[in-house]
Amino acid sequence: MVKEEHSHHESALHVRKGIASSHDGFASPQKRRFRKKEEQLPDAGELAAKILAGERKDLAKAITFIESNAKSHYNYGQELLQQLLPHTGKSIRIGITGVPGAGKSTFIEAFGHMLCESGLKTAVLAIDPSSSISGGSILGDKTRMESLARHPNAFIRPSPSGGTLGGVHRKTRETMLLCEAAGFEVILIETVGVGQSEFMVRGMVDFFLLIVLTGAGDELQGMKKGIMELADAIVVNKADGPNKQLAEKTRREFNQILHMLQPATKGWASQAFTCSSIQRNGILELWEVIQEFEEKTKAAGTFEERRRLQTKEWLHTLIVEQLKANFYQHPYVTHHLTEMEQKAMTGEITPAQALANLFSNVYKQNEQ
Amino acid sequence: MVKEEHSHHESALHVRKGIASSHDGFASPQKRRFRKKEEQLPDAGELAAKILAGERKDLAKAITFIESNAKSHYNYGQELLQQLLPHTGKSIRIGITGVPGAGKSTFIEAFGHMLCESGLKTAVLAIDPSSSISGGSILGDKTRMESLARHPNAFIRPSPSGGTLGGVHRKTRETMLLCEAAGFEVILIETVGVGQSEFMVRGMVDFFLLIVLTGAGDELQGMKKGIMELADAIVVNKADGPNKQLAEKTRREFNQILHMLQPATKGWASQAFTCSSIQRNGILELWEVIQEFEEKTKAAGTFEERRRLQTKEWLHTLIVEQLKANFYQHPYVTHHLTEMEQKAMTGEITPAQALANLFSNVYKQNEQ
Repeated sequence: MVKEEHSHHESALHVRKGIASSHDGFASPQKRRFRKKEEQLPDAGELAAKILAGERKDLAKAITFIESNAKSHYNYGQELLQQLLPHTGKSIRIGITGVPGAGKSTFIEAFGHMLCESGLKTAVLAIDPSSSISGGSILGDKTRMESLARHPNAFIRPSPSGGTLGGVHRKTRETMLLCEAAGFEVILIETVGVGQSEFMVRGMVDFFLLIVLTGAGDELQGMKKGIMELADAIVVNKADGPNKQLAEKTRREFNQILHMLQPATKGWASQAFTCSSIQRNGILELWEVIQEFEEKTKAAGTFEERRRLQTKEWLHTLIVEQLKANFYQHPYVTHHLTEMEQKAMTGEITPAQALANLFSNVYKQNEQ
Repeated sequence: MVKEEHSHHESALHVRKGIASSHDGFASPQKRRFRKKEEQLPDAGELAAKILAGERKDLAKAITFIESNAKSHYNYGQELLQQLLPHTGKSIRIGITGVPGAGKSTFIEAFGHMLCESGLKTAVLAIDPSSSISGGSILGDKTRMESLARHPNAFIRPSPSGGTLGGVHRKTRETMLLCEAAGFEVILIETVGVGQSEFMVRGMVDFFLLIVLTGAGDELQGMKKGIMELADAIVVNKADGPNKQLAEKTRREFNQILHMLQPATKGWASQAFTCSSIQRNGILELWEVIQEFEEKTKAAGTFEERRRLQTKEWLHTLIVEQLKANFYQHPYVTHHLTEMEQKAMTGEITPAQALANLFSNVYKQNEQ
């Protein structure tokens, strides 16, 4: 028999003490007492009906619950999500990344506007791992997408702030589902190239777009390892004015590299394109590429297959992160991990011995 | 209070029932009874002294303990390793990978022979994830490195067979340490490009070498994502006869790509070279590159820093794999995981609900 002696599972997606500043809402088996008097939450069925009817105020309210770090809100959000699940999944989910300065916001403004004008309800979400540090950089500046934000078919939601990257991940994933239930047909998820955020976004979208600037060599130097191999398309932005020729050259260079890499999506040859977000050139053409992608992968079955695998992988991500949270937040581990690491790093003990020490103290066993 | 109700931790580095065919020796907190009468193991201190004296027969014996799946051997191996730890770390650890057919064995034969001839004690190990399936393919065919194997300065050890990739990983890592204690100055670890083995090898070596053939484009097509970005050097093999010119062209193509990627080691510009293992051209030059790498990174402190981080990461790998093993082998999980996955994949429940179901049944809580 094995016993685990701790009872606090405050948060899940971080592995070090000190970072655990907020409750990210992973299902914790513990019951918690609340200091504040319990608030009156709206009836989940009623709120769900309003979201299904496309009430944007209620969608925003629901997202607030999903993003809340309070346990009662988390549970309420899960109940809501459960009711809305049958109505999700009908959008095309597009991830958009690129180094800072590549013009992601202006691209999304142009791309989103084109979609909204053609009658497509478009939601723009963001995953910004830096926002918990800097206080929000992408989509945070409200003036940046002003024109798009005013469009009746658009819905813009900045990155949830605070908490761990894993928490932000969960919140964005669930917000995406809420938007789908509210009838949004295109979901754009913007992320900056920091930490593991592109890999997370790749794990929740159908199509992944990498935005770059001219000068492929310099671009790639600053680019994270493996990022090009996630992309279903690369778009060289700012292909206008004197920059146009260089953009074309860059496009060819990227195509050369893409040709040598494994495709991000089976049966789909990723290609590079140029566009000008300011002159709105190449925007519609890119949408046609994405539509072709959707058609082809749906016909081949890879579209649905990827979504099923994404859900399964998400479950396993949750499991591993929860396991890690439980372990790394155990009092013995918080007190002795650094010491064990140091002893292993200086060669005083083997890593296997450090492991045995930690596990035997966390999972105290009875004699058999 | 949280209780964990299972008591079998048979193996660690796999996450599915059915694969758990052998005990890979991760420190398990449980005491186990042995059916066989306990055998008499040699005194660890005596065996350690013989290994330190360079007795090759005793080194081989010690490796057999490290590779054994029996708990008593595992513990004995750990005790031995603990005694030898202060005498490890003095070699240069070189990982060698490449697609099947790239000529890894002939390269190692030529490279190892050059090292041994120059008086360097050289150990050749292998990680072959396919060996547990196919019964061993790399280094398994004894005729392949016949000439090197006969050299008094060489020690060749095939990939440990059977068990999980994680188990093979641990065994190779610990064998490397034993070889260092026995005075080996160069450790070559060969791996084939299957699964996660290159990433594992990258995580235990100082220098990582990728062996390719002519035709960079075709090569890369069959190459795993991110593999080029692990390499401290790429060597185009079989640069002889009519192939020589093409090899030179391929070398330039790889250099172009390497120039655009992030370096595998900070402060070191990875480059491509050509060699002929059969004509023994370019072999000594490559060794000079590796020596330059060692000098530079040792002077910059990145050499030691990488080793410390590798040890720390290894500890955390062990922790996570042990956590996963304990969870995924829990009877409730082995019985209900597929059902929960299916429910999440079909959208019947959210992944968060599947998680809550699994955790509440595995870690049964008392009322607070």
